[in-house]
Amino acid sequence: MLLKSFFVPNIAHSSYLLAGSETCAIIDPQRDVAVYLDVARDLGVRITHVLETHLHADFISGHLDLAEATGAVIYAPRAGDCAFAHEGVAGGDVIRLEDMSLEVMETPGHTPEHVSYVTRDLSRGDSAVGVFCGDTLFVGDVGRPDLFPGRARELAGALQVSLARLLALPDFCEVYPAHGAGSLCGRDMAAKLQSTIGYERRHNPALQIADRDEFIRSLTTDMPAAPDHFARCSDINRQGPVRVSELSPPVPLAPTEFREPMRRGGAELDVRDYDAFGALHVPGAISIPMSGNLPVFAGWIIPADAEILLVAADDMAVEDAVIWLRRVGHDRAVGYLDGGMHSWAAAGLSTERVPQISARELRKDVSGDGQRLVLDVRSADEFQHAASRIPGSINIPATQVRTRCGELPKDRKIVVVCGSGPRSSMAASLLQRAGFSRVCNVAGGMEGFKAAGEVME
Amino acid sequence: MLLKSFFVPNIAHSSYLLAGSETCAIIDPQRDVAVYLDVARDLGVRITHVLETHLHADFISGHLDLAEATGAVIYAPRAGDCAFAHEGVAGGDVIRLEDMSLEVMETPGHTPEHVSYVTRDLSRGDSAVGVFCGDTLFVGDVGRPDLFPGRARELAGALQVSLARLLALPDFCEVYPAHGAGSLCGRDMAAKLQSTIGYERRHNPALQIADRDEFIRSLTTDMPAAPDHFARCSDINRQGPVRVSELSPPVPLAPTEFREPMRRGGAELDVRDYDAFGALHVPGAISIPMSGNLPVFAGWIIPADAEILLVAADDMAVEDAVIWLRRVGHDRAVGYLDGGMHSWAAAGLSTERVPQISARELRKDVSGDGQRLVLDVRSADEFQHAASRIPGSINIPATQVRTRCGELPKDRKIVVVCGSGPRSSMAASLLQRAGFSRVCNVAGGMEGFKAAGEVME
Amino acid sequence: MLLKSFFVPNIAHSSYLLAGSETCAIIDPQRDVAVYLDVARDLGVRITHVLETHLHADFISGHLDLAEATGAVIYAPRAGDCAFAHEGVAGGDVIRLEDMSLEVMETPGHTPEHVSYVTRDLSRGDSAVGVFCGDTLFVGDVGRPDLFPGRARELAGALQVSLARLLALPDFCEVYPAHGAGSLCGRDMAAKLQSTIGYERRHNPALQIADRDEFIRSLTTDMPAAPDHFARCSDINRQGPVRVSELSPPVPLAPTEFREPMRRGGAELDVRDYDAFGALHVPGAISIPMSGNLPVFAGWIIPADAEILLVAADDMAVEDAVIWLRRVGHDRAVGYLDGGMHSWAAAGLSTERVPQISARELRKDVSGDGQRLVLDVRSADEFQHAASRIPGSINIPATQVRTRCGELPKDRKIVVVCGSGPRSSMAASLLQRAGFSRVCNVAGGMEGFKAAGEVME
Amino acid sequence: MLLKSFFVPNIAHSSYLLAGSETCAIIDPQRDVAVYLDVARDLGVRITHVLETHLHADFISGHLDLAEATGAVIYAPRAGDCAFAHEGVAGGDVIRLEDMSLEVMETPGHTPEHVSYVTRDLSRGDSAVGVFCGDTLFVGDVGRPDLFPGRARELAGALQVSLARLLALPDFCEVYPAHGAGSLCGRDMAAKLQSTIGYERRHNPALQIADRDEFIRSLTTDMPAAPDHFARCSDINRQGPVRVSELSPPVPLAPTEFREPMRRGGAELDVRDYDAFGALHVPGAISIPMSGNLPVFAGWIIPADAEILLVAADDMAVEDAVIWLRRVGHDRAVGYLDGGMHSWAAAGLSTERVPQISARELRKDVSGDGQRLVLDVRSADEFQHAASRIPGSINIPATQVRTRCGELPKDRKIVVVCGSGPRSSMAASLLQRAGFSRVCNVAGGMEGFKAAGEVME
Repeated sequence: MLLKSFFVPNIAHSSYLLAGSETCAIIDPQRDVAVYLDVARDLGVRITHVLETHLHADFISGHLDLAEATGAVIYAPRAGDCAFAHEGVAGGDVIRLEDMSLEVMETPGHTPEHVSYVTRDLSRGDSAVGVFCGDTLFVGDVGRPDLFPGRARELAGALQVSLARLLALPDFCEVYPAHGAGSLCGRDMAAKLQSTIGYERRHNPALQIADRDEFIRSLTTDMPAAPDHFARCSDINRQGPVRVSELSPPVPLAPTEFREPMRRGGAELDVRDYDAFGALHVPGAISIPMSGNLPVFAGWIIPADAEILLVAADDMAVEDAVIWLRRVGHDRAVGYLDGGMHSWAAAGLSTERVPQISARELRKDVSGDGQRLVLDVRSADEFQHAASRIPGSINIPATQVRTRCGELPKDRKIVVVCGSGPRSSMAASLLQRAGFSRVCNVAGGMEGFKAAGEVME
Repeated sequence: MLLKSFFVPNIAHSSYLLAGSETCAIIDPQRDVAVYLDVARDLGVRITHVLETHLHADFISGHLDLAEATGAVIYAPRAGDCAFAHEGVAGGDVIRLEDMSLEVMETPGHTPEHVSYVTRDLSRGDSAVGVFCGDTLFVGDVGRPDLFPGRARELAGALQVSLARLLALPDFCEVYPAHGAGSLCGRDMAAKLQSTIGYERRHNPALQIADRDEFIRSLTTDMPAAPDHFARCSDINRQGPVRVSELSPPVPLAPTEFREPMRRGGAELDVRDYDAFGALHVPGAISIPMSGNLPVFAGWIIPADAEILLVAADDMAVEDAVIWLRRVGHDRAVGYLDGGMHSWAAAGLSTERVPQISARELRKDVSGDGQRLVLDVRSADEFQHAASRIPGSINIPATQVRTRCGELPKDRKIVVVCGSGPRSSMAASLLQRAGFSRVCNVAGGMEGFKAAGEVME
Repeated sequence: MLLKSFFVPNIAHSSYLLAGSETCAIIDPQRDVAVYLDVARDLGVRITHVLETHLHADFISGHLDLAEATGAVIYAPRAGDCAFAHEGVAGGDVIRLEDMSLEVMETPGHTPEHVSYVTRDLSRGDSAVGVFCGDTLFVGDVGRPDLFPGRARELAGALQVSLARLLALPDFCEVYPAHGAGSLCGRDMAAKLQSTIGYERRHNPALQIADRDEFIRSLTTDMPAAPDHFARCSDINRQGPVRVSELSPPVPLAPTEFREPMRRGGAELDVRDYDAFGALHVPGAISIPMSGNLPVFAGWIIPADAEILLVAADDMAVEDAVIWLRRVGHDRAVGYLDGGMHSWAAAGLSTERVPQISARELRKDVSGDGQRLVLDVRSADEFQHAASRIPGSINIPATQVRTRCGELPKDRKIVVVCGSGPRSSMAASLLQRAGFSRVCNVAGGMEGFKAAGEVME
Repeated sequence: MLLKSFFVPNIAHSSYLLAGSETCAIIDPQRDVAVYLDVARDLGVRITHVLETHLHADFISGHLDLAEATGAVIYAPRAGDCAFAHEGVAGGDVIRLEDMSLEVMETPGHTPEHVSYVTRDLSRGDSAVGVFCGDTLFVGDVGRPDLFPGRARELAGALQVSLARLLALPDFCEVYPAHGAGSLCGRDMAAKLQSTIGYERRHNPALQIADRDEFIRSLTTDMPAAPDHFARCSDINRQGPVRVSELSPPVPLAPTEFREPMRRGGAELDVRDYDAFGALHVPGAISIPMSGNLPVFAGWIIPADAEILLVAADDMAVEDAVIWLRRVGHDRAVGYLDGGMHSWAAAGLSTERVPQISARELRKDVSGDGQRLVLDVRSADEFQHAASRIPGSINIPATQVRTRCGELPKDRKIVVVCGSGPRSSMAASLLQRAGFSRVCNVAGGMEGFKAAGEVME
């Protein structure tokens, strides 16, 4: 028995390769599956099994791509009612892989159909070595049960039962979750990617709550907002995503060509850093810097079926952006601005700006004489627990700026701030699209604001 | 006989590998010599000869690095009085390389010691196959003779004699010059990298001037300005440059560490694109975008012995910048800003801006009500012959802004424009350093200005 | 005007990119066209023209792949009667590309429909800068006219006229041929890849022959043998090759799976070095080492429509082999031995050997007491003019061993020798297939034999 | 707390990076440390601690290289009496790294000075998360205590105490050992790289032995042989290895140059596959195929201070071989055969052969009429427990062939066999060096022999 894990940052997704001597299983694969094919080839094993713990809400899974590339059988929860060819599994089923067994344990809660796979290495003994528990139990956290409208309490209750089922495994049983720190499938995961039943039993806060009502309340209140794409990804994963090999790459578009799809409603997505965006951008473009969790915010902010038009620093950045977008189900990145903003500027076309002010400037003139409004776009939770806030600032999380910008006055200068700059750039771009003309961004954000108080010049 | 050429953009430098079946010569090598070692290995030949046509003014040659790596003998003009171990050559000397001969022809003019190497493939016949003519004869141009103060006329005269000597070669003899379009070692080279004696005889403008005085006048008037590093590079090449293997890479510096060498006089060099620089930069930084001929402008603008502190888009850009700087003799890039401007901003330190306005905006409000001054920093030659100029704009070439900024009013807003944006960003940064506080840059430059008149929105 | 050349070794093929400031033409492209797309992107130009000088006999052209990838128009000789969408050209036609012109000159001889493109840079003058002359005029050689059965004399005569037409160009006009040293489209090209009309006029042996009959005789006698694929490549190029994007890569086959397509007649092609092949190979495999001009010999020896089963040193070598095979029209490399010969051996299957003897051993016992036969498989020309031969050796060129092995005694040990080892390995493998059981190969070949006489031990 | 592991195959070595948010520790680093620098940079953390659990016997550690590159402090067992700058640690010491603690636990047994580091994540609780236990406890095995002559029983006893100390940790505590399957620091490790105290408590065979004498006996009898380099690596690690940056790469040597260092006693090491070696090799060369655990066998077979002369398939293989050799302390790979065996053969020099016979041939004629001797060079343990053996074969492990070849008759043909071919190639080469002239190798080995009985042809 050999175990390898794979991690995708931003969506903070862990997947696994479990190998015997000739064959292997992939558990909860990412959509771009070449990485598994490469490792399996290096190990000299064939991929024969693809296991899904549940219908992922936060990313598009690579189960179909992997099955197509290898001929492997897909195992998925029977209760998931999946539309693609698969082997449906339910509690008590046992999947054999050479001298290993994977026993299906039903663990609903994060989603209704969720299962875990309890793994045994029969060559060594009949104890459970580890459990692939998907989004049920995380390191330092548990899966959120509030993603299905109206079913949060029901699922939270089910989750507690499922966790109790997992805790019936021995202390030494290893825990292989599908996510780590940063994922929005939980609230507060640790950076460590794996753990054990015993350690979590003792130190995982959610597992310290015995009372059912309290457990439910704790998991149905004060949860972070769920991105818009969470609902649709589950469904795509159930129906079976389009194979990546069937998707077309975006085509290069000269500045004048670029305006065509813009006019018919395409979303201009600018993935450059916030400073470059601030200096110069295509009017109407949405800023989601590659360095600022592009997949989550693109999934959240950009409509599901929008044609996406990319502006990036260079061609390599275009390719990266496309991979990230596909991971969250945006398959329609149809074109990109050939030559980037420099060619746009040299084509004599209109541009817009978001002036960048440094956190130090903001601190020097923190009152601003009431002439301006400071908009803090960190999450509600970050804002409430923040060590520092700008006096008089108001909080609208960046992802809510689209819908709540009506709360803001159009005639005042708005200074947007977040943790360090990328999210406020996104918020500023959304404000500009909504007709706010006097918007600027705080480079360095509240991190810089705090530091500016400590550093002398 | 096998010939391969190598081209370095920006400095527009051509070098050559001339191979027999077992050995080869490199003519006028670039400083980063791995490229020759790789090709020689692929061809299965040893590098046994390194030939210099002259002491290059515009770049640091790799002759010593190559000799050290391979044991090859360096051949250089005897008149160059070189300080390193070499074989001095003079007119009439013949270097043998297997069944090839390279006959030395003295061709002073661009520099006093300049020689050319007339090459024959004795296995085919005794005609001259080609001539490595360095900076004497270019495709569509000739070497400039005005780089030595007070000697321009003398050298121009010598050049005419040298060219006549080259023209005595047969029409079919190929011409292998050391530079192509864009090099400042000439005035107006063609993009094509090689040519023939016969074609140049007929179509090279300089070769159509028979009269000695007219020839001299044409080559000593209206020449483009010579960068500051031209004088010192020749001397470094004569003394023998430091081997690249002995140079240290710049160290990563946290924002607060970065300020130390700044305080003791280091030059902050920001090689990011003009838009990112405009949005946010370290106060006092000089903007020379990587995409805007970094080596030539860095050689020109930055003092010879300055410690250089780099700000770049990422670590790879730092590495590239260092290679470019070394090619023009800047060996003291001692550090770079770790994490780039984002870490600077997040450290709460002061920043500066150069607002970017689009060419379209400039066109829309081209008069500006006299409130602002448009500074066109294209070269004098470009400005004079330009198809379009902003009415009322004044011309100071970007490389003269350091010394001539006193001509400008400090109390007016200055809008800087060049061809497309990078040079005006450099000029704007120099103005800021000189205390001009109301400077902005035209993104897209005059190219955008012209296009803005043609494109409808 | 900017010119870049591309060179494919083994088939010794030169192609060219001729660029203006925004667009470019590709002349005689290789089949794997990514290299042009990359360079064009780096130069910032679009590929708008694809020019064919003739229907190449020795390789499959990338004209259709390139047109498909870029939308470029294909220009080809009208007389070629091509089946794909193209612009047919004939003598006197002029193709414009920005400020350049390419005038069509009819130059039949190597093939009946052959044209050359005389290129002018109108921005500099109306002289011919260079000529893309395909397989008409080479550096040190001319195109062979003997590839069309029964038409050799006719075409040789036409060639002389065509060469005279080329020689009417000025001496300084550069010569850009489609092949260099090693190509079988000529007899004896130089290593230098380009030349000039004037130099060739003086030193090209074929151009020294004024008499028509003598010229025809010289080009129709003692020509090197033409590989079998020469006939079919022309036709594929005329009909339009399958696009590379439509071809499938070979699939990995376990040893037992590998035997299936073998049984139905697939050709096992072992591209490992001769020593590894000699130690151990699949019974019946043909040895064509990657290092020994795989494309030419594979085109020559392996039937046109054969399924090819590859044995290679590793997966990367498989990929390389597939590219080489496609370049000569072998599109049916359907599978490869997964894990290579080691997995074959470990699967307990039968193997064959070709013992390797060193050239030194052969020299020590050069008479061999008449017990063995030394078969020299160098070309007839090499053998006749060789500085050294093994006494008593007989000559059958490696490519004729298939058809002439009946001339050899089956009961004697046969020692096969070539220049250095790869071709004799191929010959030895062909003898084994024909039932010769006592075959061995001389490692180091005649090069080693000669050296063994000079080196002491 | 974030944990990443690194694995080096062949020596089957695991090392670890343990990171907080800004700094990290590396535990038991491999000698080529770039991999840690890269990951730390990607994670945005500085390497501040280097921890050694003990003085490794089987590989050269990168502690000094890493400290030099990063300024990190090295922590090593005080009892190790190390000669380099370090912080000596002993039982009970606690090392802090941000909000983590690493408590030193003395765990002698594998080596006398061995310690383990019990790790706590104080941000989550005071339970032990995991333990870096070096070569004390493995997955499915324990460290061997028999590496110090005369001290095996003493150390075995100490090991049992140390294991008991580890077992006092909670079941859920994770186990991070320094080795995995294939390492000779134990006897029979599992492929899985990490485990937990509880799982090992239940299923690790060594931990099931309560009786002290039985435990000692089990770990001091029937242990696999220890390679020769184990003794010296410990000492090098104690003194401090030469920094890799100070070592020179091997120089390319022409065939005739290659013979010079051979004559003064250099060891020719041929790392090509067994088939290529068998076909043709430099007389006297030792065969250790890269694919056949080069580091362990090179450490074992080649004298510590020998100059090593490499023969490899290509230049990349030379580079790989050098890395592997340095990992086991062979720092004197001074040269390699430029152009490989083909250039040797073409230089007319003498060669040797080891004929390869397939396992199928061996099975067909398994009795061999007593004319030949089958030498099985698998380890004694493999031989004894083998599913199949050749009737009449005798067993001398490959690593003992040097010293025990006197047991073999020089006048008989010797057929050498191992598992699949590489070790028998090594043994065959050692026999040739010892004067045995009639040696051949079984390609496919006993794996092929077994398969040959099952596959029909």
